[in-house]
Amino acid sequence: MYPIAVDAMGGDFGPEVIIDGAVAAARECAIPVRLVGDADRLMAALRERGGPGGLVEIVPATDAIGMDEAPKAALKRPESSIRVAIADVAAGRSAAVFSAGNTGATVMAAHATLGMLKSVDRPALAATVPTRGHLAVLLDVGANARCRASHLVQFAEMGAVFARISLGIASPRVGLLSIGEEETKGNELTRETHRLLKAAALTFVGNIEARDVYAGAADVIVCDGFTGNIALKVSEGLAEMIGHALADGLQREAPAIAHDVFERLRQEVDYSEYGAAPLLGVAGLVLIGHGRSSAKAVRRAIQMAHRFASAGLLARLQHDIAVSGDTHR
Amino acid sequence: MYPIAVDAMGGDFGPEVIIDGAVAAARECAIPVRLVGDADRLMAALRERGGPGGLVEIVPATDAIGMDEAPKAALKRPESSIRVAIADVAAGRSAAVFSAGNTGATVMAAHATLGMLKSVDRPALAATVPTRGHLAVLLDVGANARCRASHLVQFAEMGAVFARISLGIASPRVGLLSIGEEETKGNELTRETHRLLKAAALTFVGNIEARDVYAGAADVIVCDGFTGNIALKVSEGLAEMIGHALADGLQREAPAIAHDVFERLRQEVDYSEYGAAPLLGVAGLVLIGHGRSSAKAVRRAIQMAHRFASAGLLARLQHDIAVSGDTHR
Repeated sequence: MYPIAVDAMGGDFGPEVIIDGAVAAARECAIPVRLVGDADRLMAALRERGGPGGLVEIVPATDAIGMDEAPKAALKRPESSIRVAIADVAAGRSAAVFSAGNTGATVMAAHATLGMLKSVDRPALAATVPTRGHLAVLLDVGANARCRASHLVQFAEMGAVFARISLGIASPRVGLLSIGEEETKGNELTRETHRLLKAAALTFVGNIEARDVYAGAADVIVCDGFTGNIALKVSEGLAEMIGHALADGLQREAPAIAHDVFERLRQEVDYSEYGAAPLLGVAGLVLIGHGRSSAKAVRRAIQMAHRFASAGLLARLQHDIAVSGDTHR
Repeated sequence: MYPIAVDAMGGDFGPEVIIDGAVAAARECAIPVRLVGDADRLMAALRERGGPGGLVEIVPATDAIGMDEAPKAALKRPESSIRVAIADVAAGRSAAVFSAGNTGATVMAAHATLGMLKSVDRPALAATVPTRGHLAVLLDVGANARCRASHLVQFAEMGAVFARISLGIASPRVGLLSIGEEETKGNELTRETHRLLKAAALTFVGNIEARDVYAGAADVIVCDGFTGNIALKVSEGLAEMIGHALADGLQREAPAIAHDVFERLRQEVDYSEYGAAPLLGVAGLVLIGHGRSSAKAVRRAIQMAHRFASAGLLARLQHDIAVSGDTHR
């Protein structure tokens, strides 16, 4: 059945948008959803939408961590919606959790409550990005601002397993995001990571310059969470600017097709369309969405969580990482 | 007169493209150009283009540093075109130098030959990027992979002077590129830099998330050279991918306007259109172009160099930084 716990209090737009997405996932995709948050508010919102229906349950949480609060707030507030939602997974009542709330708080709560997979030191947030012709995985996009080379190697291993399962790429090419293709370019972290990746049991294609990410130079692109977050968010901002410029230009010259072209472009580059980024490495399925997730993005994220749960992502991740660890540790 | 020394041997496409751009700058904009490189080859290429004309001179250099060579090669090879071109500036024969060659080598050669401005420890490469409504300055985009907080403060000061002179912004808003708006977000470098920037004599608007760079949240965006290079290059790659997707889409639905819209979009986001990025902080005017610079980009870069030389960018930079240094050091 794979019920999905949804942090109904997370996100920039309030619970209603999250509830809309959750209700759509339950009604249209028959996925059981456990909505976590202020029970009265959630019940009222569900009634406005024609009642909870058989597939939506409410899990009460009396507290909620704001988008701008320090991540460590999650450690001190067990009644917060994100903590209760993650506890629901830890207790086996939900198969996965989705939150569009405070990313740092979700990472800390997941790490503290669920613990880590064996042989993994740090979790990594894995974004799925469009490239020319296919999708690729970029990680870490924000779970760890500071990483060691050994962490990046683990991210590469997890990213490769994830690309196999999620994108169906049998032998994913792993690239290291850096500022030059040559092994000697970059900073201390990339140079040391390059050395370790060459020795790892992975299809390592070397350093990838940022301009080649979208050209499809690798299926898995590895970097520290500061760099990955910058790369992902600068892309979002640029896509948005281009979208506006384009809409203006087309509106003047061909209003009839402006909408279609813009919509296709938006789907091609808008990350929220892909739903959510899994937090790989923690011993439970955790998906983190954009704070600005729309109801549609929430629905997709829940579908994605359900798909990962039924595909046994977690067990495969643990198995493949243990095997990979045995071959070269 | 402000002659511009041009490293004719730098760039991905060989001297011909550089020469085309240089000849255009001389003929169309009446800018004196001193082409540095293999004299026979340059003379032959100039003859094919109808002779050197009165404004194009050749400065012979018998060596050239390849795009993929280690930057420190520049220190050992005084006869290389980039070294000879920079020496031309040091000797006062040229007012500025432009190269589309090996960026690292150019930075090292400039630093070693010209020295630094007073109160500046490290040079920074300053890219001009389009944002919604106006242009902004992003620095460092690749001169220093590793920086200290005090370097970033100097970059902010230089960026502000540059924005005043180049973009005509009287009181540029300075932002620090990070992964969260809150002061506490980011990494050690951004937290320390944030603290220092708050105390500096600048219009500091705080941390800027990468997605807000293109929304125009600041006029000067400061970061280390690794991060800035990633941000700039990921943008180039994404713009290119969108351009292709768009061209395909429009071609199917409205071939007549596809070209126009695509061309406008390209101009809006293609950095090579802006010509080149000045290397701020060295005691001489040095502009660095994209390796893939087209002849048009080379012409624009030379115009830009000429404009900076006639505006007295270097003297103003030195003056304003000394003043700024006096107020808070």
